[in-house]
Amino acid sequence: MPLLVSFVGGDAGTWSIESLAPVVGEGLPAAPRLEVVESRAARARGSAWEFRGVTSNERYLTRAERDALRAVQQPLGRTTSTHAALIPITKSEAWWELAQDERRRIFEDTSHHLTISLRYLPAVARRLHHGRDLGEPFDFLTWFEYAEDDAAGFEELVALLRATEEWTYVVREVDVRLRK
Amino acid sequence: MPLLVSFVGGDAGTWSIESLAPVVGEGLPAAPRLEVVESRAARARGSAWEFRGVTSNERYLTRAERDALRAVQQPLGRTTSTHAALIPITKSEAWWELAQDERRRIFEDTSHHLTISLRYLPAVARRLHHGRDLGEPFDFLTWFEYAEDDAAGFEELVALLRATEEWTYVVREVDVRLRK
Repeated sequence: MPLLVSFVGGDAGTWSIESLAPVVGEGLPAAPRLEVVESRAARARGSAWEFRGVTSNERYLTRAERDALRAVQQPLGRTTSTHAALIPITKSEAWWELAQDERRRIFEDTSHHLTISLRYLPAVARRLHHGRDLGEPFDFLTWFEYAEDDAAGFEELVALLRATEEWTYVVREVDVRLRK
Repeated sequence: MPLLVSFVGGDAGTWSIESLAPVVGEGLPAAPRLEVVESRAARARGSAWEFRGVTSNERYLTRAERDALRAVQQPLGRTTSTHAALIPITKSEAWWELAQDERRRIFEDTSHHLTISLRYLPAVARRLHHGRDLGEPFDFLTWFEYAEDDAAGFEELVALLRATEEWTYVVREVDVRLRK
């Protein structure tokens, strides 16, 4: 079943916010800490911001691609994962107006989203949350976890994805970096 | 933008409920009328049931298929549309565990969901609402509108779709028929 997850920036939380930078469009108010809440509970009081998304079925991967991904991907919560990143993204209306085959083509055939990502697994653990159908300001909230030693690799991954055709459809992106 | 729509069965509403039949799995409590509410407002008080879904981007259609659909599909609310049907559906976990290419193959290549549907357009107007990512009991709420003269054609459409491979993944379905 889809899992509803809230990312709450404020005074409390497991993760310390090290940086919070706008990449495209409007940024976010500063906050010292972040909590990840996996429940359909009411919104937290007194938080600086809160964004929600649901894990859902995959939209673009073929069976072979998904098998390749599942064979190497690691779960969240590894003890070595002292670093995390939350990257909220909104894509343009032009993206959402594309048909399924057009979005798929850009996602993988020209942008190699999965192929690039696989190079950085299992070091980087990742979970995608969908917000658009919930009426949220961000279409996607992607959460990444990795160890100190894999921080340089993670920067490379983010830079490669931002250089793709797919990213030309991103109209808002914020980059939140965290430590446990 | 996705539009959140609530279908509220109860004592009030534009549509009179003529029948309300379980097709697969658990049915719904009886109610005399139905209202369709296009807003993110709070749930209605005193209703027998209420289900929500969002219109969203299409998941399976290619550009060519979507163009063919848009060329003939009609809007909701035609004055001749005195008949309506609300068909809430839930698919199995096995469906949602399929990869995108496998779901697409079943949807159109073997079940001809779009090809069959196109035969009954423009007579039947249709809008699909997604509920699964909202945590709703029904994955899909499909709303159909048609004229008295097209009622037999609509029955044919529903019967053809229920005979497809895609429908073997349906674990709950209710068929609600309405008149204005």
